[in-house]
Amino acid sequence: MYSNDTIAAIATAVGESGIGIIRISGPEAIAITNQVFEPKQDKDLNEVESYTAHYGHIVEEEQVVDEVITLVMKEPKTYTKEDVVEINCHGGTVVLRKILDLILNQGARLAEPGEFTKRAFLNGRIDLAQAEAVADLIQSKTEASMEVALDQLEGGLSDQVNDIRQDLIALLAHLEATIDFPEDEIEDFQSEELGARIDTVQQKIDDLLATSERGKILKEGVEAAIVGRPNVGKSSLLNALVREKRAIVTDIPGTTRDVIEEVINIDGIPVKIIDTAGIRNAENQIEKIGVEKSEEYLTKAELILLVVDISDGITDEDKRLMRDAQNKEVVVIANKLDLEHQLELEKIKEILPEAAIVKTAAIANQGINELEDAIANLVYSGKINAQEETMVSSLRHKKALERAKENVSDVKSTWEQGLPNDFLTIDLRAALEAVNEITGDAVGEDIIDQIFADFCLGK
Amino acid sequence: MYSNDTIAAIATAVGESGIGIIRISGPEAIAITNQVFEPKQDKDLNEVESYTAHYGHIVEEEQVVDEVITLVMKEPKTYTKEDVVEINCHGGTVVLRKILDLILNQGARLAEPGEFTKRAFLNGRIDLAQAEAVADLIQSKTEASMEVALDQLEGGLSDQVNDIRQDLIALLAHLEATIDFPEDEIEDFQSEELGARIDTVQQKIDDLLATSERGKILKEGVEAAIVGRPNVGKSSLLNALVREKRAIVTDIPGTTRDVIEEVINIDGIPVKIIDTAGIRNAENQIEKIGVEKSEEYLTKAELILLVVDISDGITDEDKRLMRDAQNKEVVVIANKLDLEHQLELEKIKEILPEAAIVKTAAIANQGINELEDAIANLVYSGKINAQEETMVSSLRHKKALERAKENVSDVKSTWEQGLPNDFLTIDLRAALEAVNEITGDAVGEDIIDQIFADFCLGK
Repeated sequence: MYSNDTIAAIATAVGESGIGIIRISGPEAIAITNQVFEPKQDKDLNEVESYTAHYGHIVEEEQVVDEVITLVMKEPKTYTKEDVVEINCHGGTVVLRKILDLILNQGARLAEPGEFTKRAFLNGRIDLAQAEAVADLIQSKTEASMEVALDQLEGGLSDQVNDIRQDLIALLAHLEATIDFPEDEIEDFQSEELGARIDTVQQKIDDLLATSERGKILKEGVEAAIVGRPNVGKSSLLNALVREKRAIVTDIPGTTRDVIEEVINIDGIPVKIIDTAGIRNAENQIEKIGVEKSEEYLTKAELILLVVDISDGITDEDKRLMRDAQNKEVVVIANKLDLEHQLELEKIKEILPEAAIVKTAAIANQGINELEDAIANLVYSGKINAQEETMVSSLRHKKALERAKENVSDVKSTWEQGLPNDFLTIDLRAALEAVNEITGDAVGEDIIDQIFADFCLGK
Repeated sequence: MYSNDTIAAIATAVGESGIGIIRISGPEAIAITNQVFEPKQDKDLNEVESYTAHYGHIVEEEQVVDEVITLVMKEPKTYTKEDVVEINCHGGTVVLRKILDLILNQGARLAEPGEFTKRAFLNGRIDLAQAEAVADLIQSKTEASMEVALDQLEGGLSDQVNDIRQDLIALLAHLEATIDFPEDEIEDFQSEELGARIDTVQQKIDDLLATSERGKILKEGVEAAIVGRPNVGKSSLLNALVREKRAIVTDIPGTTRDVIEEVINIDGIPVKIIDTAGIRNAENQIEKIGVEKSEEYLTKAELILLVVDISDGITDEDKRLMRDAQNKEVVVIANKLDLEHQLELEKIKEILPEAAIVKTAAIANQGINELEDAIANLVYSGKINAQEETMVSSLRHKKALERAKENVSDVKSTWEQGLPNDFLTIDLRAALEAVNEITGDAVGEDIIDQIFADFCLGK
């Protein structure tokens, strides 16, 4: 076992809710709970079956603190592979903190962020890639990103990484055999098959790496800015987008007070539209943002939704914004189609020849689906959205794979130069090490600590 | 049973967290869960023991949606007295909504706010006063208010109300007996003992009503405003108060984006200090609020913390603020004791003869405990803080008791006038009805609906 102390934390989100959970894990989890829990029917939690729940009260010096249900799960078949108790209590902040305090007073230690999952990893229930997927799953903003995380949690990525690892190990074993027994007739295989086998593993690494761009987009989303002159219809456009694909995360109590983020789910991509002050509170706020502010957005965002008012025609200000957007991914939105207008496409194409152009009447909800398609096309760059695919979504995994790729390509060129096998094994070992980092077979404590520090409390 | 449909809702707070719970209640709760849950070890949830938990996956068309633990609780020993299933899944918003959607697609109905607790009431597990205490418990801001709610949930208030009810019923039975058999010799008893018995029940109602002021304060807290001229040290004072009694609710993600509330726990009283914009973000924000804004606060808040800078002496502006605060509960804070100063107490007492005056050096944390004591004294008005006492904290209960009190006092005066017993029974019945409303024995559906509409979802 990774640790012999017992940890506890509030495992549910903070806020007023029906149910809150205190999670306790470690050798003393049950004994500690016994100290503060008074079951309705007299019993000792040490004696109960694993995976049973028990109704009763949390008490402090014979004073009832709350009415609860405790769920007892005995090692090793638990989240952490240790004894785990979950106390389901009323979901009030004061109630949860009070019970947590009682548990801590009985000798449990407050869990660090991610420490339960860290124990699941260190106790060998899941590998590091799976542990990281837990955080991604919780933080996922769309169903598509949830599916990516879930596949990783279920071992999809680990399986592919292990497959690559097996190839590398087999290659290494073979090469080491030829070093130890150089006179053997493995020579033939080496010059023919060896090259092919290096190619195979290289291809597998490449295939996995190829998913990382979409994986990153699905996980982290893209930041989009709606820019344009005043009164071209930016706020109507935003409202239409938000109304259409009712944002998934907008009704989560704000992560920050000063910045409003509207996250719109477009084909599984969390598209984050940022405004610095109360888009929803001040309907016309976005209209107040002049060209100056728009230019600031232009620099920051990955994706530009440039709105022009075609009832006005393309003005010099429009042109200036277009020029500023030239090195960005842009969708030009020709808005106010409902009014008398002149669609001066050539003026747009002159400055932004590659940009997608979508005609909308945002106020009447016209062209919004087309706009969403254009955004999805731009982000996915025409790649097929294969639902079942295992994806790399973590930057850490991507970097490890890139190192493995480099090492394997060094192996290949060493082999092509006909250098001795010991030269090959050095790079192969490095590739193996890089791949091992993903599943956590060869990572230092500092990296592990850093990974789990990003988790939420109680996980 | 109150209802034959099955309801479901997310029972934990929304936000990224380790664990989230979907709660399902009703006759189809287990059958519906069976449709979407694939246990690790093959089993039918209909066959499992009550109060057992089961590890497995939520699946949609053979695709895994999440790794979960389902807790099966069979009627009647459950929260609602119906079959209840709680699915413990990963605490991400998308995950929770996805699973809830699957459950709803299988025929469950989205629960209304408070509907689980409403069923617990309608199915007779708890009375209405206890049901209302559930919401209070969850929303409690301090341990003291939590204890009040918990006592009510455990039936403390209901017991006292039932005691009053028993007295009323006994009186009524006696009077009705004398009406039916007027020639009996109950006459003597009536003229002597009857008056005493009316007095007793009246006293019981009075005693309970007497707790309602403190109950209300504990439950709802008081709103305080820190007012004063610029640069008298308002922000230092607020910071010192917040630092000292680290607020309980400040780290809950904001309920509103525009208003910052700091809730400080002073002797169990949630003292809410309100500012309209980012006290914590802009340290000196409160200093920017001039006399004008202070006067707005003066009108609104229940409690005024009026800060004067005694290194400056009492200015005309100070005097103006003091005059504005004359009809309020006020603590005058003579701040900047650390600097050279002149404590012009007489100038303060001239305008606010009753006000408590506390000397502080907020910047050095001096006098903060004394200030807290002064606030507590003011709020409790010298009443003893008896921890164990059952309290009335709900306005609805208070009003019902007031009506009962009035009815009983009508009984008393009718009795004093020597009017016939039938006159007494009318008012006694009205008193009984009022008391019954508290525990829900005689309330209309509209009132019940209104009570539960204030609950959070999933409770």
